[in-house]
Amino acid sequence: MKDKLIYSLNKRYAVKKFDPTKKLSSEQLQTVLEAARLTATSYGLQLMKIVVVENPEMREKLVSCSFGQRQVTDASHLLVLCRERDLDLKHFEDYVNLMATTRNQDPKSLDGFKNMMVNSILTKSDEEQTLWLEKQVYIELGNLLTACALLDIDSCPMEGFIPEEYDRILNLEEQNLAAVLALPIGYRAADDPNAQRKKVRRSQENFVLTV
Amino acid sequence: MKDKLIYSLNKRYAVKKFDPTKKLSSEQLQTVLEAARLTATSYGLQLMKIVVVENPEMREKLVSCSFGQRQVTDASHLLVLCRERDLDLKHFEDYVNLMATTRNQDPKSLDGFKNMMVNSILTKSDEEQTLWLEKQVYIELGNLLTACALLDIDSCPMEGFIPEEYDRILNLEEQNLAAVLALPIGYRAADDPNAQRKKVRRSQENFVLTV
Repeated sequence: MKDKLIYSLNKRYAVKKFDPTKKLSSEQLQTVLEAARLTATSYGLQLMKIVVVENPEMREKLVSCSFGQRQVTDASHLLVLCRERDLDLKHFEDYVNLMATTRNQDPKSLDGFKNMMVNSILTKSDEEQTLWLEKQVYIELGNLLTACALLDIDSCPMEGFIPEEYDRILNLEEQNLAAVLALPIGYRAADDPNAQRKKVRRSQENFVLTV
Repeated sequence: MKDKLIYSLNKRYAVKKFDPTKKLSSEQLQTVLEAARLTATSYGLQLMKIVVVENPEMREKLVSCSFGQRQVTDASHLLVLCRERDLDLKHFEDYVNLMATTRNQDPKSLDGFKNMMVNSILTKSDEEQTLWLEKQVYIELGNLLTACALLDIDSCPMEGFIPEEYDRILNLEEQNLAAVLALPIGYRAADDPNAQRKKVRRSQENFVLTV
């Protein structure tokens, strides 16, 4: 496993040019989505959703709010990693109820846990909540980049787009969602210029400190 | 690979109680650190370092700024994922020089790339820079949680500690670093209560939207 992991992480890079003719199978897509669903999040709350954008007109519109990056249309699939937009008590009640059902517990026995989460999170300012929610989505991105690499699926992590425009085009606000990151996935084009470039990384000596 | 990936992600959980007698081999630790070094970051800048805390007295001190969580001392190894503290032009010059050396290019040919990054990042407010740097560390966490799971190494991702105290105890400020996340890694204790609990996750239907 060690060799496959390090090989895959070395092979991974941000694809500049996808091959638009190469598509993920639906089984591959399901595996990626399942990996996403299993991502660790703070308290396990999963205050996020993934939007799979299949509609070609929508994808075309998204290019213009992504600084013209054609990965948005050319990749096999476009994933938009979203956070919940506004948090309220129901998010925590739903989670605790799901936990109780999953683990065959009395939801009442989880009141202390629920109140601890509520006191920790709903007392944050709106801005702090947003940032904390966004960070959870970055964990998801880190997981997905590695998962895709291991599955021999190419990807391009994207912070560079106008989130408000994504929200508008994908009608995310009415789902209480907000776009945080985009992740086109598929297969590199044979002539992708980025594929040939040697990976640039600081040495272990400049990356690790032991104390 | 698909089965191993999904199996590993299902097996992963936030360890509450590590077995203090079980240690990672130095080869295993190196693999984890190498996976961290290969993490994707915005522009590939890697404005982060990992601190491996080996000093037992330091680890003991860190428990009291981690709400008493004993994973900090009991895990085989404690990783502290740090961001660069203050950014300046040199970070970008160093990166461009490393890129030029790695790819056998003239650094001058990368001036446009460097200026684009500088204009995008050094123009942010201090607070915006901090948040953006922190988010990159969350990508690293997402990668490492999956990498460890695949390597059959247990872990416990931790946001719950007092970063300023970590910075002080580990002398991070003098290295221009700031603690963002902690990641004890090692092996679960046979009687870890969290190990027996069924994973709680929303269904795919409640996690994925297709448009």
